[in-house]
Amino acid sequence: MRTLPLHAGAHGLLDDAATLAIGGETLVLTHDAIAEGVHYRAGTDPADIAWKLVAVNLSDLAAKGAEPIGVLIGATLVEHNERFVEGLREVLTAYAVPLLGGDTIATSPAVFGCTAIGRAAAVPHRTSAKPGDALWVTGHIGAAMRDFAQGGPAYLRPRPRLAEGRALAPHVHAMMDVSDGLLLDASRMARASNCTAELSLDAIPFAPGVEDRLAAAAWGDDYELLFAAPKGFAPPVPATRIGAFTAPGPAALLLDGAPPPEKLGYEHG
Amino acid sequence: MRTLPLHAGAHGLLDDAATLAIGGETLVLTHDAIAEGVHYRAGTDPADIAWKLVAVNLSDLAAKGAEPIGVLIGATLVEHNERFVEGLREVLTAYAVPLLGGDTIATSPAVFGCTAIGRAAAVPHRTSAKPGDALWVTGHIGAAMRDFAQGGPAYLRPRPRLAEGRALAPHVHAMMDVSDGLLLDASRMARASNCTAELSLDAIPFAPGVEDRLAAAAWGDDYELLFAAPKGFAPPVPATRIGAFTAPGPAALLLDGAPPPEKLGYEHG
Repeated sequence: MRTLPLHAGAHGLLDDAATLAIGGETLVLTHDAIAEGVHYRAGTDPADIAWKLVAVNLSDLAAKGAEPIGVLIGATLVEHNERFVEGLREVLTAYAVPLLGGDTIATSPAVFGCTAIGRAAAVPHRTSAKPGDALWVTGHIGAAMRDFAQGGPAYLRPRPRLAEGRALAPHVHAMMDVSDGLLLDASRMARASNCTAELSLDAIPFAPGVEDRLAAAAWGDDYELLFAAPKGFAPPVPATRIGAFTAPGPAALLLDGAPPPEKLGYEHG
Repeated sequence: MRTLPLHAGAHGLLDDAATLAIGGETLVLTHDAIAEGVHYRAGTDPADIAWKLVAVNLSDLAAKGAEPIGVLIGATLVEHNERFVEGLREVLTAYAVPLLGGDTIATSPAVFGCTAIGRAAAVPHRTSAKPGDALWVTGHIGAAMRDFAQGGPAYLRPRPRLAEGRALAPHVHAMMDVSDGLLLDASRMARASNCTAELSLDAIPFAPGVEDRLAAAAWGDDYELLFAAPKGFAPPVPATRIGAFTAPGPAALLLDGAPPPEKLGYEHG
């Protein structure tokens, strides 16, 4: 798709979201789709699907420091559709985001799309980390993996870091959300910024109950914010320094000084 | 979905598109999804799917008098995906609309979503037809039905009436596109405006080659513009006067003085 006529605000399709300058304001737009069997298991409560659908898109707005304006939803009509609507109500209410529009279709297996629109002041891209920057992450890593196995809420009901994103955006060099795995997403930021990301496994703030730390660092769905900030930066929100950016080398990512031993995370089809 | 927290610009989800006032400008936003077996037949050239996906969304912008700014696409990765990308290139180039962003997923059968964003000066809603208004339609009706059978371009490659929509928008009382059937869409405009739409079958400008006129009036996919304008209005673009709005009565639509004898058009699931 990168060879198509792109809007300048598409940023080469290399960022989490597009930006659109309108009448002196900056809009941030993102569209993510989720499908049964790919992003959630068959039999998942449609209310949880609705929550996740909206939350993962709001997370992209959070990563660009944007305040949500509204969402448009494309939804398959499913059995117990009233549960989908209830989940939508819960997530829209939780983040004070109104519905702007949408479409329903009848198809099987179910697929859901969401376009989220927000407004932002300063938009940090994922391409602007600099050698010498520190690499930080909000919250904990691995809660989604743990709860996927144990049935807890972190996997099904991620919490987009909207307030944190807005607080961080004016101060950081680069920011993105952790959706496909901390290691993979950090390597993407490094590659996009023409740097090497050097991480220390011991520095990563794993969630309580996480046993396989390397697996958790390669799992996705945490929707924490990963950001690059100048040395000495004191984050205005809870965050942990997990590494640093250095000059580009043969690998985009070094974990404890060496390329990681296995798959970095979830690669989209 | 109408019971959810709605943005004021969602217009109760009763219109073709949402509006958003940003920095003194009015944005128009719409999201439609299409699925294999529902909106197109299995085996359709992915280039045609891409064209139709974008065209039907641009048609909603046309109906609100909007100039497209960009689109976001959510696409299933299909066999011969390069044809999908080629079709996207064709439709984006044809209407000078850049890609703002998107997402790809692996699911089967295929589902495609598109969010289109435009800017508009005057936005005609579908709720503002008034008794005494004339009812008009651009172009011809039935070309999509004819070409669905004969393999012609009108069904697979509809042409959104963007220029016509922009020319008409400042002058009409109400406007919408004909996506689900002229009779059904006219009855929707009448109901939304608390009027009766009175149409004459002989007045409808059927496309050459259409034999079953009543079936063509109930078929969708023509993507012409249907609009209500004050008596005596002289349209700035080619259009045909097909009826008038009168005070509300027991039926929202009268065809040659009586409720139509059969299903009005394509009702979404």
